[in-house]
Amino acid sequence: MELLHTDTLEEARRKLEEQSQGLAPGVVEIGRAEALGCICAEDVVSEENVPPFPRSTMDGYAIKAADSYGTGESSPGYYRVTGHVHIEEEADMTVEAGEAVRVQTGSMIPRGADAVLMKEYAEEYVSGKLAGYRAVSEGENIIRAGEDIRAGSCVIFRGKKIGPADIGVMAALGIQKIRVCRAPVVTVISTGDELAGAEEKLMAGKIRDINTEVLAAEAEACGMAVRKTCRVPDDREEIRNAVEEALDKSDVILLSGGSSKGEKDYTKQVFEEISHNVFTHGIAIKPGKPTLLAFDPASGTILAGLPGHPMAAALIFRLVIRDWYLKRCGAARPLPCPAVMAENVSSNHGRVSCLPVKLRMVKKTEGSGTVTVEAVPVHAKSGSIFALASADGYVMIDRNREGLKKGEQVLVERLD
Amino acid sequence: MELLHTDTLEEARRKLEEQSQGLAPGVVEIGRAEALGCICAEDVVSEENVPPFPRSTMDGYAIKAADSYGTGESSPGYYRVTGHVHIEEEADMTVEAGEAVRVQTGSMIPRGADAVLMKEYAEEYVSGKLAGYRAVSEGENIIRAGEDIRAGSCVIFRGKKIGPADIGVMAALGIQKIRVCRAPVVTVISTGDELAGAEEKLMAGKIRDINTEVLAAEAEACGMAVRKTCRVPDDREEIRNAVEEALDKSDVILLSGGSSKGEKDYTKQVFEEISHNVFTHGIAIKPGKPTLLAFDPASGTILAGLPGHPMAAALIFRLVIRDWYLKRCGAARPLPCPAVMAENVSSNHGRVSCLPVKLRMVKKTEGSGTVTVEAVPVHAKSGSIFALASADGYVMIDRNREGLKKGEQVLVERLD
Repeated sequence: MELLHTDTLEEARRKLEEQSQGLAPGVVEIGRAEALGCICAEDVVSEENVPPFPRSTMDGYAIKAADSYGTGESSPGYYRVTGHVHIEEEADMTVEAGEAVRVQTGSMIPRGADAVLMKEYAEEYVSGKLAGYRAVSEGENIIRAGEDIRAGSCVIFRGKKIGPADIGVMAALGIQKIRVCRAPVVTVISTGDELAGAEEKLMAGKIRDINTEVLAAEAEACGMAVRKTCRVPDDREEIRNAVEEALDKSDVILLSGGSSKGEKDYTKQVFEEISHNVFTHGIAIKPGKPTLLAFDPASGTILAGLPGHPMAAALIFRLVIRDWYLKRCGAARPLPCPAVMAENVSSNHGRVSCLPVKLRMVKKTEGSGTVTVEAVPVHAKSGSIFALASADGYVMIDRNREGLKKGEQVLVERLD
Repeated sequence: MELLHTDTLEEARRKLEEQSQGLAPGVVEIGRAEALGCICAEDVVSEENVPPFPRSTMDGYAIKAADSYGTGESSPGYYRVTGHVHIEEEADMTVEAGEAVRVQTGSMIPRGADAVLMKEYAEEYVSGKLAGYRAVSEGENIIRAGEDIRAGSCVIFRGKKIGPADIGVMAALGIQKIRVCRAPVVTVISTGDELAGAEEKLMAGKIRDINTEVLAAEAEACGMAVRKTCRVPDDREEIRNAVEEALDKSDVILLSGGSSKGEKDYTKQVFEEISHNVFTHGIAIKPGKPTLLAFDPASGTILAGLPGHPMAAALIFRLVIRDWYLKRCGAARPLPCPAVMAENVSSNHGRVSCLPVKLRMVKKTEGSGTVTVEAVPVHAKSGSIFALASADGYVMIDRNREGLKKGEQVLVERLD
C-alpha cells in the first residue's frame, strides 16, 4: 500500500508562489476602453483636479451665501443680476455683495460667489432684480475644484479589477492608457482513453470530455487567455508531446485526468521528465487530492495536473491556479458572503473540505436583523458537474473539524 | 415655480416594462463555448444520463458489496479476479458471488457488481486470488448512471447567467448550441457644450465627458452590445439628428445630460417629437431625479434620458435599464449581501435614496456569529465618479425613512 505525501492547501499555494517567481512578470499597457475587467498593475495617480474648477450642481444664481442669511419664503432677499455664465464658458466676472450671477447646472462658479440659490426659490424681474426666497449655506449646490478627484491622489490601486466607474475615472482625468496585468496564457489538455468530444456520438464505455471545456471557461472567466484546448489518449508519449508543444507558448498548462494512482498514470512522469521540479504530489483536500504541481524553469511554465473528476478539477483550478494569479496581481480576494449552515454536514477529519453550497435569503421574524443568508450544501460526488453548476459558492471546512453544524456561521466564497 | 411630476422607481420600472413590450424579443442561438456570461433564454433539458453507465470513482475491484461484509484488516475476504475493465471499454462480463473485476477510476462497472473495493485495501496474487481488507457498502466508490445528470431533467434554467460549470454541463451532454438572450444594442450619447473628449486638452470652463464612457462600460458589463458612443452639443437639431441616426440601429438609446430643467433642455422635446411617448418625466430618487423614459413604437427603441451627473447616470442605468434587461431575460436578481450600517445616515423623506457603500468584514468577539459585514457609506455629491468607483455596492433607503441607523441591517446590492 503506497501512500501519497500530500501538501496542505496552504503549503501547495506557498510552494507554487515561490517556485513560479521565474514566470515573466507580465504587465501590459492597453487603452482605457479595453481595460474593463482587467486587473490594474500599477497605482494610477491623478495629475488633475476633477472638476478642474468649482461648478454649480443646480440651475440658479451664484451668490454670496451670507447675503441670503435670514431670508425666506415670507421675507425675500434681493439681489442684482450682473451676468450669466454659460456652462461651456469661463466665468470672467466677480460676484460682489448683493449681486447674483445666473448659472446652469455645470457652470463655472464666478469668483466671490460661494453658494448657488436654486432657480426654484428665486424670481428674476425684467429689470435685472432678483428676489430669493431661501437662505443657502456656504458651498451649497456647488461642487468644489478637486472635490471628486484631488490632483496627486491614487484613483485606481494596483490589484483592483477595473469596473465601469474606473473607466469613468480615467475618462475624467484624460488618461488614455493603463498598465494592467497581462493575462496568463493557458493551454488545457485532458487525458483519458475513455473521453469523447462533445460533438461525438458516445460509444459504450466512453464518456464526454467535460474538463477541457470547464477549465477553459474557468480560466477565461478569471481573465486568463486560453490559447488551445486538446484531448490526448493515456499514452506517455502523446501526453509528453502535447505538454512539450505547449511549453514555450504557455504560462500555465492545465492537464487533467491521469493524476490519480491509476495504472496509466503518466502525468507525473512527464512533468518530472520535463521540469525535474514536481513540488506538490497531492493536496490534503476533498475533493481534489490527486493534484500535481510543477514549475519548469527553462520555459517559465506552471504545470498543473488536476483531478479527472470535473467538480474537483474546477475547484482546484479556483483554489490553486486562480488564487495564484490573483495573488500575483496583488488583487484582493473577493469578499466572501457570511451565511449560516442550513443543515449539519460531516467532513473528513484531517483534510480540509471544499463544500459547494447554494445560498438563499431567509426572512427572520425575531432578533435585530430581519434577513439572513443560509448556505444549503449541494451533496454530490466529486465527478458531478451539475452539482457545481447548481452551487452559488463553496465553504471551506477546516481539517481540524469533523463537520459543520446547522445554524453555524460560515463564509461562502462565491462562484460567480 | 414649475414642479416636475415624478414617478417612484417602481412606477418607472413598471411603465418601462409595459411600454417596451414591442421591442423585438431577442433570442439568439450560439455555440457552447461563446455562451460564457450570456443569459440562458430557454430551459435546457438533458436528453441523456450523465454518466451514461455506472462508473468506478476509484482504482480497485468491482465486487458484490455483500461479499465484503464482516471482512477487515485482520480478517480478510477472498475473491477470485475474473477480469479487467479498461476505462475506455464496455464491461462485457458479469460479477458473480466471490468474484472481483479489476477496474480503474472511470471504468464501467460490470453487471452484478455494486461496489468497488479500493486497491489500497486489497492485495492481488499472481494466482488471480485477491485478499480484501475492508468491507464496502452497496454503491461505495461508484457513481450511478444518471447520478450527475438524469435524462429529462432541466440542467440550465431560463434566466441563468451561464458560468464555467454550465459550459461543462453542456459538454457533458454533447449540447453544441444554446439559445441565449440577444444582447440589446445600445447607443450612448452625451450632450453638453461644456464636454471635452478624454483626449482633448481642457480649456477653461470645459470638463471631460465621463458619462459616455461610464455608461458604455456599464452596458457592456451587463452584457449589452454598445454600437456607438458620441458627444453632441446642447443643440436641439444636433441632439435630434444623433437620436434619429441611432433609432433603427439600437434597442436602447442612452442620452445623458440635458434632462434637468436647464435652459438648454432639449432631450425631452426631442424624445417627445420622435416617440410621442415620454412616459416618465422624473423619478423620485436621490440621486437621479432628472430621468426621462420614452419608448418609440415605430422603431422599437427605448429612449432613456439619464442625469448629467456621472454617479447618478450610472446608478440610474443600473436601477432602471439593467434592471429592465435582467427582468426581460427572466434573470434572477443577484443575491444582495446583508450588512450592518457602520454609521448613521440621513436621507430625504419622501423619495427613495440610493446610497453607495463600501463593504468591510469585521470580526466580532461575542455572539454566535464571528464575522459581520459592515456597510460604510461613501459620502459624495452625485457628480462624483470616484466615489462610485470606490464603492462595493449600494443600499436603497426607503422613501418612508428619514435615514439609516448605525448597526441597522441593510441589504447591499453589489456593484461588481
